[in-house]
Amino acid sequence: MTRMDEADLRELIEGVRRGSVDPDAAVERLRRLPFADVGDALVDHHRTLRQGTPEAIYGPGKSAEQCVRIVGELLAHGSGPVLLTRADDDQVKAVVAAHGEAERAAGCVLWRRPEPRPDRTVLVVTAGTADTPVADEAGFTLGAYGLPVDRLHDVGVAGLHRLLAHVDRITDADAVVVVAGMEGALASVIGGLTSVPVVAVPTSVGYGAGLDGVTALLAMHASCASGITVVGIDNGFGAGSAIARMLRA
Amino acid sequence: MTRMDEADLRELIEGVRRGSVDPDAAVERLRRLPFADVGDALVDHHRTLRQGTPEAIYGPGKSAEQCVRIVGELLAHGSGPVLLTRADDDQVKAVVAAHGEAERAAGCVLWRRPEPRPDRTVLVVTAGTADTPVADEAGFTLGAYGLPVDRLHDVGVAGLHRLLAHVDRITDADAVVVVAGMEGALASVIGGLTSVPVVAVPTSVGYGAGLDGVTALLAMHASCASGITVVGIDNGFGAGSAIARMLRA
Amino acid sequence: MTRMDEADLRELIEGVRRGSVDPDAAVERLRRLPFADVGDALVDHHRTLRQGTPEAIYGPGKSAEQCVRIVGELLAHGSGPVLLTRADDDQVKAVVAAHGEAERAAGCVLWRRPEPRPDRTVLVVTAGTADTPVADEAGFTLGAYGLPVDRLHDVGVAGLHRLLAHVDRITDADAVVVVAGMEGALASVIGGLTSVPVVAVPTSVGYGAGLDGVTALLAMHASCASGITVVGIDNGFGAGSAIARMLRA
Amino acid sequence: MTRMDEADLRELIEGVRRGSVDPDAAVERLRRLPFADVGDALVDHHRTLRQGTPEAIYGPGKSAEQCVRIVGELLAHGSGPVLLTRADDDQVKAVVAAHGEAERAAGCVLWRRPEPRPDRTVLVVTAGTADTPVADEAGFTLGAYGLPVDRLHDVGVAGLHRLLAHVDRITDADAVVVVAGMEGALASVIGGLTSVPVVAVPTSVGYGAGLDGVTALLAMHASCASGITVVGIDNGFGAGSAIARMLRA
Amino acid sequence: MTRMDEADLRELIEGVRRGSVDPDAAVERLRRLPFADVGDALVDHHRTLRQGTPEAIYGPGKSAEQCVRIVGELLAHGSGPVLLTRADDDQVKAVVAAHGEAERAAGCVLWRRPEPRPDRTVLVVTAGTADTPVADEAGFTLGAYGLPVDRLHDVGVAGLHRLLAHVDRITDADAVVVVAGMEGALASVIGGLTSVPVVAVPTSVGYGAGLDGVTALLAMHASCASGITVVGIDNGFGAGSAIARMLRA
Amino acid sequence: MTRMDEADLRELIEGVRRGSVDPDAAVERLRRLPFADVGDALVDHHRTLRQGTPEAIYGPGKSAEQCVRIVGELLAHGSGPVLLTRADDDQVKAVVAAHGEAERAAGCVLWRRPEPRPDRTVLVVTAGTADTPVADEAGFTLGAYGLPVDRLHDVGVAGLHRLLAHVDRITDADAVVVVAGMEGALASVIGGLTSVPVVAVPTSVGYGAGLDGVTALLAMHASCASGITVVGIDNGFGAGSAIARMLRA
Amino acid sequence: MTRMDEADLRELIEGVRRGSVDPDAAVERLRRLPFADVGDALVDHHRTLRQGTPEAIYGPGKSAEQCVRIVGELLAHGSGPVLLTRADDDQVKAVVAAHGEAERAAGCVLWRRPEPRPDRTVLVVTAGTADTPVADEAGFTLGAYGLPVDRLHDVGVAGLHRLLAHVDRITDADAVVVVAGMEGALASVIGGLTSVPVVAVPTSVGYGAGLDGVTALLAMHASCASGITVVGIDNGFGAGSAIARMLRA
Amino acid sequence: MTRMDEADLRELIEGVRRGSVDPDAAVERLRRLPFADVGDALVDHHRTLRQGTPEAIYGPGKSAEQCVRIVGELLAHGSGPVLLTRADDDQVKAVVAAHGEAERAAGCVLWRRPEPRPDRTVLVVTAGTADTPVADEAGFTLGAYGLPVDRLHDVGVAGLHRLLAHVDRITDADAVVVVAGMEGALASVIGGLTSVPVVAVPTSVGYGAGLDGVTALLAMHASCASGITVVGIDNGFGAGSAIARMLRA
Repeated sequence: MTRMDEADLRELIEGVRRGSVDPDAAVERLRRLPFADVGDALVDHHRTLRQGTPEAIYGPGKSAEQCVRIVGELLAHGSGPVLLTRADDDQVKAVVAAHGEAERAAGCVLWRRPEPRPDRTVLVVTAGTADTPVADEAGFTLGAYGLPVDRLHDVGVAGLHRLLAHVDRITDADAVVVVAGMEGALASVIGGLTSVPVVAVPTSVGYGAGLDGVTALLAMHASCASGITVVGIDNGFGAGSAIARMLRA
Repeated sequence: MTRMDEADLRELIEGVRRGSVDPDAAVERLRRLPFADVGDALVDHHRTLRQGTPEAIYGPGKSAEQCVRIVGELLAHGSGPVLLTRADDDQVKAVVAAHGEAERAAGCVLWRRPEPRPDRTVLVVTAGTADTPVADEAGFTLGAYGLPVDRLHDVGVAGLHRLLAHVDRITDADAVVVVAGMEGALASVIGGLTSVPVVAVPTSVGYGAGLDGVTALLAMHASCASGITVVGIDNGFGAGSAIARMLRA
Repeated sequence: MTRMDEADLRELIEGVRRGSVDPDAAVERLRRLPFADVGDALVDHHRTLRQGTPEAIYGPGKSAEQCVRIVGELLAHGSGPVLLTRADDDQVKAVVAAHGEAERAAGCVLWRRPEPRPDRTVLVVTAGTADTPVADEAGFTLGAYGLPVDRLHDVGVAGLHRLLAHVDRITDADAVVVVAGMEGALASVIGGLTSVPVVAVPTSVGYGAGLDGVTALLAMHASCASGITVVGIDNGFGAGSAIARMLRA
Repeated sequence: MTRMDEADLRELIEGVRRGSVDPDAAVERLRRLPFADVGDALVDHHRTLRQGTPEAIYGPGKSAEQCVRIVGELLAHGSGPVLLTRADDDQVKAVVAAHGEAERAAGCVLWRRPEPRPDRTVLVVTAGTADTPVADEAGFTLGAYGLPVDRLHDVGVAGLHRLLAHVDRITDADAVVVVAGMEGALASVIGGLTSVPVVAVPTSVGYGAGLDGVTALLAMHASCASGITVVGIDNGFGAGSAIARMLRA
Repeated sequence: MTRMDEADLRELIEGVRRGSVDPDAAVERLRRLPFADVGDALVDHHRTLRQGTPEAIYGPGKSAEQCVRIVGELLAHGSGPVLLTRADDDQVKAVVAAHGEAERAAGCVLWRRPEPRPDRTVLVVTAGTADTPVADEAGFTLGAYGLPVDRLHDVGVAGLHRLLAHVDRITDADAVVVVAGMEGALASVIGGLTSVPVVAVPTSVGYGAGLDGVTALLAMHASCASGITVVGIDNGFGAGSAIARMLRA
Repeated sequence: MTRMDEADLRELIEGVRRGSVDPDAAVERLRRLPFADVGDALVDHHRTLRQGTPEAIYGPGKSAEQCVRIVGELLAHGSGPVLLTRADDDQVKAVVAAHGEAERAAGCVLWRRPEPRPDRTVLVVTAGTADTPVADEAGFTLGAYGLPVDRLHDVGVAGLHRLLAHVDRITDADAVVVVAGMEGALASVIGGLTSVPVVAVPTSVGYGAGLDGVTALLAMHASCASGITVVGIDNGFGAGSAIARMLRA
Repeated sequence: MTRMDEADLRELIEGVRRGSVDPDAAVERLRRLPFADVGDALVDHHRTLRQGTPEAIYGPGKSAEQCVRIVGELLAHGSGPVLLTRADDDQVKAVVAAHGEAERAAGCVLWRRPEPRPDRTVLVVTAGTADTPVADEAGFTLGAYGLPVDRLHDVGVAGLHRLLAHVDRITDADAVVVVAGMEGALASVIGGLTSVPVVAVPTSVGYGAGLDGVTALLAMHASCASGITVVGIDNGFGAGSAIARMLRA
Repeated sequence: MTRMDEADLRELIEGVRRGSVDPDAAVERLRRLPFADVGDALVDHHRTLRQGTPEAIYGPGKSAEQCVRIVGELLAHGSGPVLLTRADDDQVKAVVAAHGEAERAAGCVLWRRPEPRPDRTVLVVTAGTADTPVADEAGFTLGAYGLPVDRLHDVGVAGLHRLLAHVDRITDADAVVVVAGMEGALASVIGGLTSVPVVAVPTSVGYGAGLDGVTALLAMHASCASGITVVGIDNGFGAGSAIARMLRA
């Protein structure tokens, strides 16, 4: 498996060896190589590392046509999962019309879902009912990476008994995504109950002093629990992707 | 017990009745009453309600001489507790030289500590060691109101076991002051464990994303626990005063 | 009155004593007890404390169906008041269709209103007409706790005479909820006029420099009146719940 | 009294009339007039308007030598008051050594204090003891404009009786400067008690939620009292200058 | 003209003198005077001062019915101008139906416009076309106080020539209202061109870095021009009221 | 070409010379010159400098009629390009009806597009698809200045290979406009790859922690790349204008 | 290995079986189990999971004596690594005096460094020289978890060539910690170059628009690179702990 | 002039041609070229572009030893100017001791000052005396690029006459750096007076509402003047570098 245009390179060198290519021309061409090809080179290299991971398209700001085209290219040029996130109704309708039915949930569309890896479980926990859409996006993303998902809903810290009733599920998971708006305290509590990776997702749920998720984001960063990490507000996709990086580590 | 200068008023009216006071002069004087005396009237009324509560002086921004004078006036004009808070070394030295030794702790000086009320206990909980000075100010203030204080230190929510080991003390208290910096999550957890008044004090403990206490303040307000209330950043005195209002209610 | 499944526990122990239960099996089952049952245990304990208080459901972010189901469970499993807050029209229509008519006001629905406690009065004060909806939510919540409510509207501090005309109602109340947007100064003034608990609710009323309630929230925390406490922006329910904690104290 | 170099202009025109100045040269010179002289023209005009007002130098960021030189120029080129504000010890020592003793207070130095205007009184009110330095700067500035100052200290709104005891002084003043940190509520209350100009000065007094004066500044702007205006944080000089503009109006 | 119920007071005193009123009853009644009547007393006093100024009602947050009722009361109980501001279409329709046609502009409705004072002119300046609505509100408010208004539009500081072409109008005015969004620099420039009162109104005009008017508000407060004052964002009414206080001073 | 009313000035001076104009009258008239005419003088001067640059009208906040009138005046009084930006549909329809078809794109309308300057190329780079509208506004503005535009889309720094594949286009450009929302990192990277002027435009693209473009604006200012400059959020027009200033330098 | 006092439990049950323990007494004791022991139970369970991880003490806000005591307890009660972070000179001196020399760097002190795990490498990358202290804290923390550290310094994105020269080290690492202040763009770039876990640490390096690290924190959250996670400002310890969670996953 | 190791490349190709290098080995080595050398390649390329520009070292966060070493390397490896900025006393002493005397001003040290370019002038304008240090840094940086500097001090917009008196210097400059704190209005005014590049530098001068330069930064971005650009707070070096990019364009 070559990373850059190895066949062309070999042909050039063979041409030099055979005398059919002038050394000066060869030097000239090769001298420009890093600038001309560095982009493709990096992408090849990069792709190697990303083997088996979904190609993701972020919907907002793209027209339905752009979505159809990009999804099409990714389906055509690879064989792995293709994931469209935060798609609106027009985008979904257009891509389904163009590329056939696919799994759908939480504003996401997924083609070629990979086999789930049987040996890993990621727990997605929410503090309140209103955090569900963000948790669904995280869960769907994890599925697109082949990671099985367990879900625990509505276990905000003001009702500690609901959380503690499920302490085994928390400590049994290989990684935990904590989805919480308002004061985001659930991340600190979960972080203290398990030693596996915990990714906190602040949500814009709440009103007033919640400041559209900024309070939760700051609170999660100021958390007294060590070793938890945070992604952006409402960024369920980011949390899923982050966990995927970790469980492959 | 009169609220305004009742003796004078009675004398005036008697003067009218006896004919020794001219009705016009009486009307003129009485007509101005609300403006001339409303201040004193309100303060009398107010004082009545505040019977037995400490008179407090906030140290910062006052010279040592001002502290000496104000403490002196309060000691002279009343018989209840007098409390100087956030006093610096110069202020403490000056007031002790002028008004004699007194109880001191947490930057506060107290004269005439009242008898503790035996039937009430206020629990002061801190999330971390660094929250102690604010908790001490709250505790000392509560003492100045005659309220017995129980203390629970260093029970941040990332180590839930330390908190739960003391769940009985939490549920037995008549009111709880929660002192927490960083993400302030402890307030939400405590609020869910007890149904008595919970006053949360955000502290400026922490760094970076803690934003000098603003994160904790916002998080406490965005809390998922219902019915907890919040005082200003590092305001241990305010928390103590607030609890005093509540336990007298 | 047992806190955990005492009957089962007793039966298990009796089984051991009688020899019908194997000691190893009993140990195995009991050893897991804290983890399996701690949740229920806490909730029982908690419930004991909360005897007589309303169960509340926060509407936003829940579907009408979710509201119907949760209200139904709470009505079925308890006998106390059940309160749905911030319900939109669809939610109200659905719950009324499912569970019968109930008291409604300020976006709240209440089943099984408790008897009012005759010996307590909570004054709900607003600074301006536009603060009324938040005050109504606070008042309705207080009613759900059985607390009688007195109301004083539109007494902003720029018209001090309107406020002072009612000073007796302020000083007669057992607790005061101050609902104010804009600069929130009313909380400081009321705090100085009474020594009972004062809970300040900043509202998002106003424009520009009011910053959607953040200015009022900060100003209430920076207040020069000692012992007042604050709840989140527009959080009338929180204020009502907080007062309920205090007046039971 | 001319605004631009009228003598020169007259001489030029007379030269044209007498034939000693070539019309083309005159046109050329006059044509450039707006660009060459607009600066001086504006300043002359401006000076006319500012007759009798103090020339002020803001100390911070200037060396002692710069202060000496600027004060010297202003003393030499005019006959009105000269005011140095926010001067540090080095600056004060240097200007006094260079220009002789002068009135000093609140970090200000004033030469040539004008006669006070007998018919006007400006009330400077503070909410707390710690606001005094800013109030002093305002008061001293007013004096430099010849405006007599009445002072009322420590009448924060949490002790309304102290404020109301002086309601006559408030309603008798021709203008009021309200100096307040913390929540700045005093401005709203004073604004409702008088119909003369009220200038509010937020101070950086307080801690935590006071946000170094930003809370007071926002609160004063969100005030429910109509027609009060605000200057910058701790800007006592600005308040004094603003009042001077108003009372000359 | 009495400030409190002088006739009643006189009758009471006369009753005492005549013996028809028992001194004890008189004392009892008078003793409560400050609390019972302080509100009315203040309002009377206040009204005296406010003689001739418009009574203003702020529309937002009030129902059309509330507007109708309040306007009606103010029209009935006084003879001065009545001004409804920020009224929406429903409110306007309702008040006009109830109280007859009135002057209308800029979302305001005015009954009983006073005679303009011929000796005063207030200049209202805008930086850009989009600031016009706020300027109109300021201008209409000034009219409600009887103050003649001159207008100067679209003279932002990036086109200094447009501003300087009207420098005479600026220096001739008795007071200036500067209405500016974006960076608000116009206030600083105008403040340096005139020595009369300058009230700056930051507007929410602009996008991005203008932060809905917060940038202009802060910039106006940080202004290098001394003695200008600032009102809240978009607060044209506040600016008009402030100028009215000043020009009566 | 005269800058001020030179003909009138010459006539006045000739009148003086001929004796038909009284010298006193001439002095009086000339003495007022700076104030009366400084505005026009500055604008003339300014116009000279701006020769050949488009006159721009910012659409928002103007009525369609105002747009029609201003465009008409600019078309009538000059011969250079006229550019209407951020026009909504009504404005576009009205100006086209009044002034004939014109080039349109990105919410802009342009009359009299100048000849492109063949020797300059400005590269407009976007980080993501959603930044396109702002980039289009920048590109259209550059065209209105006669500057040829090269475009490079969707080269966010998380896919460095896409950016590096085009490094020649970056280093070949005479100036670069970097349009990026989210974290705005593209500006720093581009700034390090070229030594020509780089103008960064933060966009409001993104959600949550992007804070509507404030994060990108701050990040671009905190950039580790030296010598890049920044314009306001979404300000494509500003970026185009800034580049025009630079390439004429 | 038992989680709770299994031996005692077994003895109690055996006592019941043998008849030496009264069933009622057993029930009574067991009934209280969840409350009495839940704390210890959780901590045991927790400890099991944390086997082999360092016990960490955060220095700030603790006295030197507190540090000595806590370190002593942790050394006495366990056999794993003990790590004191952010220790000041007094704390370091005291703990070394009490507990003997230990490894020290970056304000941290470590006792009982574990054997490094040979199969893992964590790359710690800094954007600039000034980020070194935070990177050192992260590196030292990783060492305390037995994780080998590779370091790459001063590879800010404005000099992309320095970064790309080391692209192999980036793609070879098992996880990457990116330490960057200013605009924090390095995190986005690194996130696009590798598919392993990337933890970004914003630092307070920089001035002005860097806002003490808040800009970098926000920018990292708004990053266009998917799957990177963020810890708090300057929180090198947090990053190290987070990586440890991930590489054990 | 080659960009990458052209001699080696030529030798390799010649070896292939001569048969002394195996084609497979050549292919293998060339195939890795982009990754091994891309860093150096970019830097060479970059250096070509940066010919003649100063190498700059930012002092803060570096030890004196680090400064000595980096300056030494830059002096040794190039022949162009070397500029150390924001150096503290220790750094200056150390570099001078190691590398000999050099030009110094404004906390900067410069070796090998280039010949000034006679045909360009950059005007550096300050709003107030306290902005001087930032202006000096900008001026010194411009000198390090060989750009002659004209200076205009203390021309804040509140004294427009001072600014207008120098309008010719403003319109004659080839570029303008505007250094202003407080409200930063000077940038808007200058932007309207000239059509050359204007770079605005917000400074942290001022107090209170200036928010340490954030107000000026925001105001400059919200400016009504089109085509001005902004650099970071107090970033005089950035402004100088930006102008250098522009004047070379």
